[in-house]
Amino acid sequence: MTTKLIVIYDQPENAAAFFKHYEQVHSPLVKKTPGLQRLVLNRIAGDIFGGAAPYIAIAEMDYPDRETFDAAMKSSENQAVGKDLMSFAKGKVKVLIAQSDE
Amino acid sequence: MTTKLIVIYDQPENAAAFFKHYEQVHSPLVKKTPGLQRLVLNRIAGDIFGGAAPYIAIAEMDYPDRETFDAAMKSSENQAVGKDLMSFAKGKVKVLIAQSDE
Repeated sequence: MTTKLIVIYDQPENAAAFFKHYEQVHSPLVKKTPGLQRLVLNRIAGDIFGGAAPYIAIAEMDYPDRETFDAAMKSSENQAVGKDLMSFAKGKVKVLIAQSDE
Repeated sequence: MTTKLIVIYDQPENAAAFFKHYEQVHSPLVKKTPGLQRLVLNRIAGDIFGGAAPYIAIAEMDYPDRETFDAAMKSSENQAVGKDLMSFAKGKVKVLIAQSDE
């Protein structure tokens, strides 16, 4: 059963700066975490009912099982990810653990 | 570019009843929407920092492009999906449109 880290980003002050940092700095760090199978950034385009969306993006990082996930979270590579996350999204992010049957 | 419907479910009063309804009633309705490529239910296991997670699950419905997505949203099959959603998650759900480069 796939274990995922799901990161939900609140709307930032500057969307262009957010995506630039995510793509140029954050994403390359995430891709170094051991055991990562898949990284997807879902860019939120809006609310289905036409209102403003509370979030700008939802990122998913897939690991093949909980053991690999736990090892990745404890890795030095992930410490760099966490440090970078706090540099651009502190107080504006939810970091959740999820399981899916993918 | 994949267009997704991302549905974020708040914690329900009864988690077991929520998952039973989702799997036995809601998921089969979603799978009837025209053009659907993929349906995934991510079950939230917790917050990475050890706290309680605000959400019980995040569902993703993938369509191959925005045109197919828009047609699916307008379909009679999706009207049944929306009606069912309101029967078990009214006021406890965010329904967002997203784009990903998957």
